[in-house]
Amino acid sequence: MIPESINLAQKLSRFDATWAPKVIAALNDYQLKLVKLEGEFVWHSHDETDELFVCLEGEFDIEFRDGTTTVKAGELCVVPRGVEHRPVARERCHVLIIEPTGVVNTGDADTDRTAPNDEWI
Amino acid sequence: MIPESINLAQKLSRFDATWAPKVIAALNDYQLKLVKLEGEFVWHSHDETDELFVCLEGEFDIEFRDGTTTVKAGELCVVPRGVEHRPVARERCHVLIIEPTGVVNTGDADTDRTAPNDEWI
Repeated sequence: MIPESINLAQKLSRFDATWAPKVIAALNDYQLKLVKLEGEFVWHSHDETDELFVCLEGEFDIEFRDGTTTVKAGELCVVPRGVEHRPVARERCHVLIIEPTGVVNTGDADTDRTAPNDEWI
Repeated sequence: MIPESINLAQKLSRFDATWAPKVIAALNDYQLKLVKLEGEFVWHSHDETDELFVCLEGEFDIEFRDGTTTVKAGELCVVPRGVEHRPVARERCHVLIIEPTGVVNTGDADTDRTAPNDEWI
């Protein structure tokens, strides 16, 4: 058994739900997750870790308390630990997230938007 | 100051050298590095860490002692820690590597192909 290549478009075709990260690979104690975004998420932060967003298709905004960063296909953004943010996608977009295993999508927020963790596709 | 988006194509346009990883972002104690591959690299392994390769443009092979995995644009591959591998690119290709800060490109190999580390662009 040798390490296989993972095709992002093929993996993205396997699910349709928004705001529900799906794990596609592990890197040490980190996970690579695909997520489809559409609409507004909740304000939250992750006190223990930075969070990497890589936009694969479409574009979305990451709102911060002091401004907004737009992330388009072919761009990435690292949200530092502890920084409040809210992803907002005016149209559906596809994003690769990399963060330590076990990080909850809604961070510290008290919300019903928390997705099941560790769902592999 | 809010976190900025980083455009991969713009960063790739800033250097031309092959086999010379350039750091574009940090994620906790990991770094995101862009590298241009062309030709054959050296056999090596990283005993302490997995290594993530994301192919952004073109394609390349990762040779293992037991076989070869081709990684095309839009695909990624995680090489587990301790696994001997050799990247080979028949034509120039562009790759995003994510691994812990301080990892040397040539791992355990005794070679003159070791690139300077921690070069940001």
